[in-house]
Amino acid sequence: MLSVGIVGGTGYTGVELLRLLASHEGAAVTVLTSRAEAGRRVDDLFPNLRGLYDLTFTEPDARALAACDVVFFATPHNVAMNMVPEILATGSRVIDLSADYRIRDADLWSTWYGATHASPELLEAAVYGLPEYNREKMVTAQLVACPGCYPTSVQLGFMPLLAKGLIDPSHLIASSASGVSGAGRQAKIDNLLSEASDSFKAYSVKGHRHLPEIEQGLTDIAGERAQITFVPHLLPIVRGIQSTLFGRLRDRGADLQAVFEDYYGDAPFVDVLPAGVLPQTRTVKGANRCQLAVVVPQDRDTVVVLSVIDNLVKGASGQALQAMNIMFGLDESAGLRQVGLLP
Amino acid sequence: MLSVGIVGGTGYTGVELLRLLASHEGAAVTVLTSRAEAGRRVDDLFPNLRGLYDLTFTEPDARALAACDVVFFATPHNVAMNMVPEILATGSRVIDLSADYRIRDADLWSTWYGATHASPELLEAAVYGLPEYNREKMVTAQLVACPGCYPTSVQLGFMPLLAKGLIDPSHLIASSASGVSGAGRQAKIDNLLSEASDSFKAYSVKGHRHLPEIEQGLTDIAGERAQITFVPHLLPIVRGIQSTLFGRLRDRGADLQAVFEDYYGDAPFVDVLPAGVLPQTRTVKGANRCQLAVVVPQDRDTVVVLSVIDNLVKGASGQALQAMNIMFGLDESAGLRQVGLLP
Amino acid sequence: MLSVGIVGGTGYTGVELLRLLASHEGAAVTVLTSRAEAGRRVDDLFPNLRGLYDLTFTEPDARALAACDVVFFATPHNVAMNMVPEILATGSRVIDLSADYRIRDADLWSTWYGATHASPELLEAAVYGLPEYNREKMVTAQLVACPGCYPTSVQLGFMPLLAKGLIDPSHLIASSASGVSGAGRQAKIDNLLSEASDSFKAYSVKGHRHLPEIEQGLTDIAGERAQITFVPHLLPIVRGIQSTLFGRLRDRGADLQAVFEDYYGDAPFVDVLPAGVLPQTRTVKGANRCQLAVVVPQDRDTVVVLSVIDNLVKGASGQALQAMNIMFGLDESAGLRQVGLLP
Amino acid sequence: MLSVGIVGGTGYTGVELLRLLASHEGAAVTVLTSRAEAGRRVDDLFPNLRGLYDLTFTEPDARALAACDVVFFATPHNVAMNMVPEILATGSRVIDLSADYRIRDADLWSTWYGATHASPELLEAAVYGLPEYNREKMVTAQLVACPGCYPTSVQLGFMPLLAKGLIDPSHLIASSASGVSGAGRQAKIDNLLSEASDSFKAYSVKGHRHLPEIEQGLTDIAGERAQITFVPHLLPIVRGIQSTLFGRLRDRGADLQAVFEDYYGDAPFVDVLPAGVLPQTRTVKGANRCQLAVVVPQDRDTVVVLSVIDNLVKGASGQALQAMNIMFGLDESAGLRQVGLLP
Repeated sequence: MLSVGIVGGTGYTGVELLRLLASHEGAAVTVLTSRAEAGRRVDDLFPNLRGLYDLTFTEPDARALAACDVVFFATPHNVAMNMVPEILATGSRVIDLSADYRIRDADLWSTWYGATHASPELLEAAVYGLPEYNREKMVTAQLVACPGCYPTSVQLGFMPLLAKGLIDPSHLIASSASGVSGAGRQAKIDNLLSEASDSFKAYSVKGHRHLPEIEQGLTDIAGERAQITFVPHLLPIVRGIQSTLFGRLRDRGADLQAVFEDYYGDAPFVDVLPAGVLPQTRTVKGANRCQLAVVVPQDRDTVVVLSVIDNLVKGASGQALQAMNIMFGLDESAGLRQVGLLP
Repeated sequence: MLSVGIVGGTGYTGVELLRLLASHEGAAVTVLTSRAEAGRRVDDLFPNLRGLYDLTFTEPDARALAACDVVFFATPHNVAMNMVPEILATGSRVIDLSADYRIRDADLWSTWYGATHASPELLEAAVYGLPEYNREKMVTAQLVACPGCYPTSVQLGFMPLLAKGLIDPSHLIASSASGVSGAGRQAKIDNLLSEASDSFKAYSVKGHRHLPEIEQGLTDIAGERAQITFVPHLLPIVRGIQSTLFGRLRDRGADLQAVFEDYYGDAPFVDVLPAGVLPQTRTVKGANRCQLAVVVPQDRDTVVVLSVIDNLVKGASGQALQAMNIMFGLDESAGLRQVGLLP
Repeated sequence: MLSVGIVGGTGYTGVELLRLLASHEGAAVTVLTSRAEAGRRVDDLFPNLRGLYDLTFTEPDARALAACDVVFFATPHNVAMNMVPEILATGSRVIDLSADYRIRDADLWSTWYGATHASPELLEAAVYGLPEYNREKMVTAQLVACPGCYPTSVQLGFMPLLAKGLIDPSHLIASSASGVSGAGRQAKIDNLLSEASDSFKAYSVKGHRHLPEIEQGLTDIAGERAQITFVPHLLPIVRGIQSTLFGRLRDRGADLQAVFEDYYGDAPFVDVLPAGVLPQTRTVKGANRCQLAVVVPQDRDTVVVLSVIDNLVKGASGQALQAMNIMFGLDESAGLRQVGLLP
Repeated sequence: MLSVGIVGGTGYTGVELLRLLASHEGAAVTVLTSRAEAGRRVDDLFPNLRGLYDLTFTEPDARALAACDVVFFATPHNVAMNMVPEILATGSRVIDLSADYRIRDADLWSTWYGATHASPELLEAAVYGLPEYNREKMVTAQLVACPGCYPTSVQLGFMPLLAKGLIDPSHLIASSASGVSGAGRQAKIDNLLSEASDSFKAYSVKGHRHLPEIEQGLTDIAGERAQITFVPHLLPIVRGIQSTLFGRLRDRGADLQAVFEDYYGDAPFVDVLPAGVLPQTRTVKGANRCQLAVVVPQDRDTVVVLSVIDNLVKGASGQALQAMNIMFGLDESAGLRQVGLLP
């Protein structure tokens, strides 16, 4: 039985880790930290967990965490980079759900996150935790940086096309839309129901923090420099991301449906829908699953890929758990068999 | 042309006053204050108002307000009670949308609002601004206290039955539900879309601040002591209150549909629906209207009244504007001809 | 391994049974019928089930169903009552999620459901499947009638008070609100998103079909005639029922919190919240759980009980699966360990 | 006072015309037809209109309509094309909100709408009713074809760039999202709240009926052949369209903010937001307004335009009323002064 620690368990990725781990047959949460809620029972804060956990939030403490086999960071950025070196030194392995170790270039990271990186020496060793791209490296990783929610949906959608050289990577376009839970459990007027419901808007169009991560990932996949115009939007729902992706085809003759089905034939959590079926976010709600469709409208030279995930599951906590399963040689689906809640 | 001042124009009742006043033929906003947003254009904060107002928020200033014929307080409680005496002294009339002058008993007010009242000497002179009950007193009032949103919906629903002595006032029940805008434009985790959408809950069941106001009003109407069990709920919508009211009939023979139609025959903003039609909140969205239905299920001895309003219009800013029209002898419908936004 | 048949698998209770059964370790669906969708793969209709079931809808066929250990009816009313006698005769046991066998009085059933009952001889033998009331009888039942969604929430809320004689059963009140999935997967204008979202309304106030079922159940529990004023409302959400219940206390001294905790101490799926905590529908979304709170506002003589369930789980398919587990001596939680999806 | 007829008043564009016309000082609805609801009062179907109209739906009748100065068709496609010739012959002018006269090429129309056009001889004379492009021709038009909702949002967004030759028209991209009211008031399972809420999806990606209309309009504006990849999405809200538009810049030096502000300087219902401000659909809810923003992310060579409208107002009934005002020389804003409902 793996001993699991979670740093920052009061946010949405924290409670989602707890929901998923409750059905994991080979792992148990032993430490759960929160500065703000130390001393409070977790099921007092999250009553959906009543009867499942007899756990109380504690102050983050390196010694307690050192006793864990694996420590998840479900914290805002700028937290993990200060604590991870000490934890790794004790031999515990770390899975960071925040942005701290996603970008290999420390200067680029600083530009987008507005701070100097506290442990840049770990950036090269950190493994980018997208299993469909990086599974082998994850097996032995001491530190896994979980991809962001938007980057997961965009990279999984473009990957077959870029890996096969079927589209021009220099002018990619992603029009993505996310539920509000992606903004976290923070008191902000913009995310009030009265502000964000019954509406739709784009935001951060000039440049969103996920842009450099997306371009780094797509460049790795393509093997040549990728550039993307990425426009995120806010959906009046809690969970779900849909990315609508556009690329210019280099080769109009390819059977793209077959390319996708073949590419993801072995991926347990990427589901290429049958030709003619389009995904919707509700179908993957609560499930660790990416559903994809590929279409060439009017048989012209622009390909459209539709990619949906639950931002809190395949876009965050589910993917992190998938990483844990890979790192420790467990069944990759352990704790991840939830079925999408439809309707 | 009336000169209008608004204190606290950055909340939802403030922007709603501005939306309604934009179509008022006899009044113009000349002063708009906000401590937090002083110096900012109002249409920068509320882009729906672009092209309608060339106004900038200013610090609250008694002299500037003194130049207004009427000053609206669209502030949280505890603000108006400190500023109103000075404004009344200059001869301006005041319409307070907050709770400060709604309860005549200063001690009772203190119990529920957790502060000592700063101008208790005005409580007796303040006129409770429910036009369907108090129109005559409002004509000459210098200070009108606008009813709360829940109290408006509950009092309008019970009024015909209590005024005619048809139900027992000692054991009334109100199960009410409000959209989230009733909680104001404040950054609170509980009111995030991720927390409040796709859910429904009761709150403040032990005792909500509107309880003493409701009981005061119902007692006035009934002419005998009224007690009510009032359970408010939070709806996952922005605007709208529905109150479902239960009373024990004293007289089972009365034609209640006729009683209601007769009682509100002259009320321009209370609409008794035809027998068999039930109201819904969307029908009055954006409109200064209360729609009512009265039913006696299974012809037993319990009567059910359904009462819907838009909490920001008939439950707040629309009712305040109606008060202004009455106080200044204007057409009662001026600025209040918006039609419910359906669908 | 139990062999399970589902008649009418295209509605919301059908797909929900399939979602839950996918994680049941001791049962497998072998027959899935639908007249309208015969020949279509189930995961084509419900893409959340892709990878879980290799099943195609078939025409209902008594012989195929006879091979099942248990047959669920997830059909509209008036279907089961025609097919059940034949199935029972083959030795299969039946769990009916529809209303056909819930009311023991065939004439009363006819009054509310507008048809003559096709198999009234089974009404007395059918066991009302509310485990918290009827567990023992369910163990040996050949035919279980699953309670309606509203009746489940109302009965579980009132049960401790009525069973202990703490409230007057003659004038009970229930103000209930349900998500739209309760209306089923049927094309009706009233349930379009454009009609039902962003709004709230009462309906069927004169008399809802669940009224006689509720009164029958409450009368059984109380051991004396119970009457209730029941007002259902439509919530602009998919899943969830909250019932707000009002009763007049006979005994004001009782420790109601202790009464509830004691009464449900052994019930695995009824969760009495700690004093001061109020339930919300989102906390039980997707879970087979009823959460309850009991409050006496202002320490007067009216008690308020708040009861929430997911109408498709504890209000329908989860409760049906719980019945199956009880009938066949399985772990009562098998297939029912899903955690509420929060946020 | 103009006499107005509305054919097909039971859909969402019909009730929206009635909402807007209620505040029009120079026009009155005299005939309102519906085959399905003939004999029913309009405020029985739409209770938000109570007190505003004393009108009953009638069977469509050419003679009654001939007495109107102007007749609106708020019907599904394939209706107007059969009735309009007769109405025009009587001298009444016609404003068609359906798709029947939007596409000049009758064969192209047939390909997309699956029927032979019944009055192709009118296609050339019909004026495409986008005031910002076609105002002059509309003044004298006998028959105006109102643009579709998506085409309005897309054309208004691209127009300044294409008219000035600033982008390449051969590879335009539009990722658009619409509220469900765009699908009309029709009983379809896909548009139930239980299906469409709390979700997001693309649809008609291979080819949506608005594609040929959009390309015809953009080609007219550009003066050279325009091609677009158009992906519509369904939003879980009632009203609102946002189009996120992508184009490749021919000239990177232009001040696009100034281009937009200058281009729409005289357009009363197109509002170019200040640089840095992004639109949201809620800001224009209920208002006849298009709000636009233009951004060049990362100062690369792809320009992004964000365009929002209320699909029922500027995307349908409001634009139709604007057409009427232009055709009859009335104040262009008559009946169109509603302010966006925020929050």
